[in-house]
Amino acid sequence: MKRKAVVIFSGGPDSTTLLYLTIKRGYKAYPITFDYGQIAKREIEAAKKIAEGLGLDIKIIDLSVIKDAYLGATSLVDENMPITKEFSKQLIVPFRNGVMLSFAVAYAQSIGANYIFYGAQGSDEPYYPDCRTSFVRAFQRAARLGTDSKLVIKAPLTKLKKSEVIKLGKELGVPFEMTWSCYRGEEIHCGVCESCVNRKRAFSEASVPDPTVYKVE
Amino acid sequence: MKRKAVVIFSGGPDSTTLLYLTIKRGYKAYPITFDYGQIAKREIEAAKKIAEGLGLDIKIIDLSVIKDAYLGATSLVDENMPITKEFSKQLIVPFRNGVMLSFAVAYAQSIGANYIFYGAQGSDEPYYPDCRTSFVRAFQRAARLGTDSKLVIKAPLTKLKKSEVIKLGKELGVPFEMTWSCYRGEEIHCGVCESCVNRKRAFSEASVPDPTVYKVE
Repeated sequence: MKRKAVVIFSGGPDSTTLLYLTIKRGYKAYPITFDYGQIAKREIEAAKKIAEGLGLDIKIIDLSVIKDAYLGATSLVDENMPITKEFSKQLIVPFRNGVMLSFAVAYAQSIGANYIFYGAQGSDEPYYPDCRTSFVRAFQRAARLGTDSKLVIKAPLTKLKKSEVIKLGKELGVPFEMTWSCYRGEEIHCGVCESCVNRKRAFSEASVPDPTVYKVE
Repeated sequence: MKRKAVVIFSGGPDSTTLLYLTIKRGYKAYPITFDYGQIAKREIEAAKKIAEGLGLDIKIIDLSVIKDAYLGATSLVDENMPITKEFSKQLIVPFRNGVMLSFAVAYAQSIGANYIFYGAQGSDEPYYPDCRTSFVRAFQRAARLGTDSKLVIKAPLTKLKKSEVIKLGKELGVPFEMTWSCYRGEEIHCGVCESCVNRKRAFSEASVPDPTVYKVE
């Protein structure tokens, strides 16, 4: 019987590569997606379609309540705050990945999965503390102690830069045209927010053709 | 200026004692309560009234979505499952306290609080892995790494048995008649579920008069 793995999956290029990697490695994948009230609802639509394409059941957890805990203190969930072109403190939803991992642990326990795949990648490490390997290890320890289990949290992309993730995704056959990165909720990628800028740069650095239609090229 | 402390607060006798202790120790308390779809809505009503009585703003996070992650696999959120008199695996909501702590970390970050008070107490240690000191320490480490902060998670009741918590609460002036323990959602405490049995026993062992009205004495 295949080993079960919960995959934290947002519909972005990194976590889609992660999902394809998990399947390639022989796990039975259980993607879990969080709707945390972000403006980028397109991300969730992308996640659904990609999972459907793979014939996988996707678990969508409505975490819009997270707005309450954060008091709207981030531009990703508050429409009144500006979305910046470069990294800024405002783009951090504090401990968001900690909250998502906690739910993933609960979900894994309830379906008898011993593995969680988490798509943190190397380019985010300097900016987002909850994308760091040290955090993942510490969280795994807390999760094991808190569930009396041997749960394994794997974050195989932490050693890769975003452009290397794109290269890996290309090898795995990831349909990048179906993935979503933009922080805005428009019809197409805006091309100017931090996330679009990083996406463009990663394809360019990876020398992989970028199938994305941007509003501003 | 007083140090800010987020207090995970359910309206039960343990976490009410914790809340009173936090205030007694000189912190400005920010109680946070989780509505995770439990049948015992009375617990949340109790929490609101107790916080009001102390003149505190209470943050209530609707976590009813947690049902989805758990697939209804616990009798505390699923009305079709029996509530047992003694401890059983069915009473564990897997990693529930991990999920609650994650939200508490996010909330603490957003209000600039450096402390989280968590009411795990010693009598639960053998049964609930996420009530253990080792778990709390590991989670604190993950929270610090995940937020790049010096956040402190205090669990001052882990060294006490439930009866000792009741004694401490008595000293601190906790209005035990306002607290709620029963796993059922009835008008008064049922007196026969695991939680009522523990409550009765704790008051008795502490030699503190039990102000609770039980359906079955």
